[in-house]
Amino acid sequence: MLNQPTFVPVGTQATIKSLTPEDLKNIGVEIFFCNTYHLYLRPGDKTIKKLGGLHKFARWDGKLITDSGGFQVFSLGRERGSEGKLIKITEDGVEFTSHLDGSKHFFTPEKSLQIQHNLAADFIIAFDECTPYPSKKEYAQQALDRTHRWAIRSLQEHKKLNKKLNQDLKLYGVVQGSFYKDLRQESAKFICDQDFDGIAIGGVSVGESKKEMRQAVDWVLPTILKTKKPIHLLGVGEIDDLFDFFGRGITSMDCTIPTRIGRSGYFLNRTGNIKTDLKNRFKTKIENLKFKDNQEPLDPNCNCYVCKNFDKAYIHHLFKTQELLAYRLLTYHNLAFMINLQNKIRKSLKDGTFEKLKKEWLGK
Amino acid sequence: MLNQPTFVPVGTQATIKSLTPEDLKNIGVEIFFCNTYHLYLRPGDKTIKKLGGLHKFARWDGKLITDSGGFQVFSLGRERGSEGKLIKITEDGVEFTSHLDGSKHFFTPEKSLQIQHNLAADFIIAFDECTPYPSKKEYAQQALDRTHRWAIRSLQEHKKLNKKLNQDLKLYGVVQGSFYKDLRQESAKFICDQDFDGIAIGGVSVGESKKEMRQAVDWVLPTILKTKKPIHLLGVGEIDDLFDFFGRGITSMDCTIPTRIGRSGYFLNRTGNIKTDLKNRFKTKIENLKFKDNQEPLDPNCNCYVCKNFDKAYIHHLFKTQELLAYRLLTYHNLAFMINLQNKIRKSLKDGTFEKLKKEWLGK
Repeated sequence: MLNQPTFVPVGTQATIKSLTPEDLKNIGVEIFFCNTYHLYLRPGDKTIKKLGGLHKFARWDGKLITDSGGFQVFSLGRERGSEGKLIKITEDGVEFTSHLDGSKHFFTPEKSLQIQHNLAADFIIAFDECTPYPSKKEYAQQALDRTHRWAIRSLQEHKKLNKKLNQDLKLYGVVQGSFYKDLRQESAKFICDQDFDGIAIGGVSVGESKKEMRQAVDWVLPTILKTKKPIHLLGVGEIDDLFDFFGRGITSMDCTIPTRIGRSGYFLNRTGNIKTDLKNRFKTKIENLKFKDNQEPLDPNCNCYVCKNFDKAYIHHLFKTQELLAYRLLTYHNLAFMINLQNKIRKSLKDGTFEKLKKEWLGK
Repeated sequence: MLNQPTFVPVGTQATIKSLTPEDLKNIGVEIFFCNTYHLYLRPGDKTIKKLGGLHKFARWDGKLITDSGGFQVFSLGRERGSEGKLIKITEDGVEFTSHLDGSKHFFTPEKSLQIQHNLAADFIIAFDECTPYPSKKEYAQQALDRTHRWAIRSLQEHKKLNKKLNQDLKLYGVVQGSFYKDLRQESAKFICDQDFDGIAIGGVSVGESKKEMRQAVDWVLPTILKTKKPIHLLGVGEIDDLFDFFGRGITSMDCTIPTRIGRSGYFLNRTGNIKTDLKNRFKTKIENLKFKDNQEPLDPNCNCYVCKNFDKAYIHHLFKTQELLAYRLLTYHNLAFMINLQNKIRKSLKDGTFEKLKKEWLGK
């Protein structure tokens, strides 16, 4: 079991970009998210299995979660070509072309589960279709029905593999349904009725607004909460999201944003106006000239290795000169900032001060 | 004083690419080399002075050495344009254009020393002209005469600044003279007659062969050794160079190669044939497919953090997927490899086993 709730950083290629497992431990990271699609293509799930599985491969003795590969198959396929061209969806599964070399591949629910069992993360995810945004209702309904049939097939394959490989991986079913209330509720009911270890909510991060995203979650949460199972929100995890969704009962969520914006030169802090500056209230560009001779740490309230040892002036210089150390230090701090916030939220949920903490951070 | 002899890694922009000062300490790095030209342009020597000097800026409490800026002014200027176009040499100094924005700048011996005193490394270097390779003798003689006049001006400005700023920086004079025996010897005599704290040998790394380089050093070494001063060989420091030159009495040398080849995917080890594979005997490409599932460390004889914690398979994967952690781990190991070798050479020089060690490594 994971400590709850948990912010799950993303290490697509079995590495959180620029950081070592030792760094992650020092930050307090307990789990990270790897992408099955990428690891299947490179170095290959069979190679990782041969090397002892993902934990041993990446020298990480904390927890790991992999996705089904579906999200990348669909989103990269649709990004790169017209829908019919680079992916071909049938009842059996999805044919897609590698974004690396154009080679053809075919994922089925069974295949996704086989790959994930080869990788052998602690938590794995059923194979689903993440529909494009927006989707017509008719298509969304068809895709959802298929996703539910794939959910059953994923579950069956998973049980077989857990037995065969003498593993005890935990499988999350995925609630889909685009942005249609009845489809989302139908999906929640269906997925919660199955014997999954946890419930994931998928396809809500692709919408247009945070309001829409919250609504899609709210439609299904009452049904899911009744199961008492862990609930993972896929691809969501900015600072306001942590308050919104951990407050509602989501137990974990993964997000690339904190580490990605670090590599783009943003550091997380709390200097923006929490009520008026919704876009940038928690992030600041290190490239800003005013930091050229600023001898303060990135965040004076942060106790992380970077804030204890470096000032803005030096990190500003490193980023301006495109030095590798800049990306490392900014990633480290941003991740530490998120984990510290996660820990504060955990504590507040335990001692009944969550609403107070939320108001302090979001102003409402 | 530096422990002798010393391999000096290069941190051009006040950072050894991808590594923290903590990493450097763990590796055993005692000093690194920063480039005055780059730091003058970004963030500017005045900014660094305002921030407390280079040590404080880069959070490095070990030793530091800066060059005069001359090497970059000349080599970048000549690389980017015809000689007369991007740099203009007069008796007073050199006008050059920034490789960043094309702005015009003027370095004189006094200016170089002022910048270096603002940066305030422990060891600094007189302003010299590094002539292109090859240079006609007439030009080499003119440039050398000018370099000697600049050496005197550098020394005078240095003494003034040490007093004015209440600093005790140590200044190295630079022996030049292209690849002409009489010019080199004339230069050694001239530079050794001045009141420098140490003697640097410049302009030998630009030649065509290692043989030529060794010859240019041998022409001047007897004269320099008599001074009993520290002797720094500029821009040289591959594995065979460490044996060749530390064995001859050079006390320190700086080189970008071990860290740069790390970022290009090479790791240092000893698997090549030392007698027949002169080009690659100490380095191996991590991208080689045979490492895809290799569970050995980069170098089984290395005790560094990377070799204790990671295997070739994972680093191969990181490099193939262009992950930032690859550059960090390869840089770390290569630097550790060099420092370990430096330590072995130090020990062998003390206990009289140097020739044995050299034979073990170079086969001669």
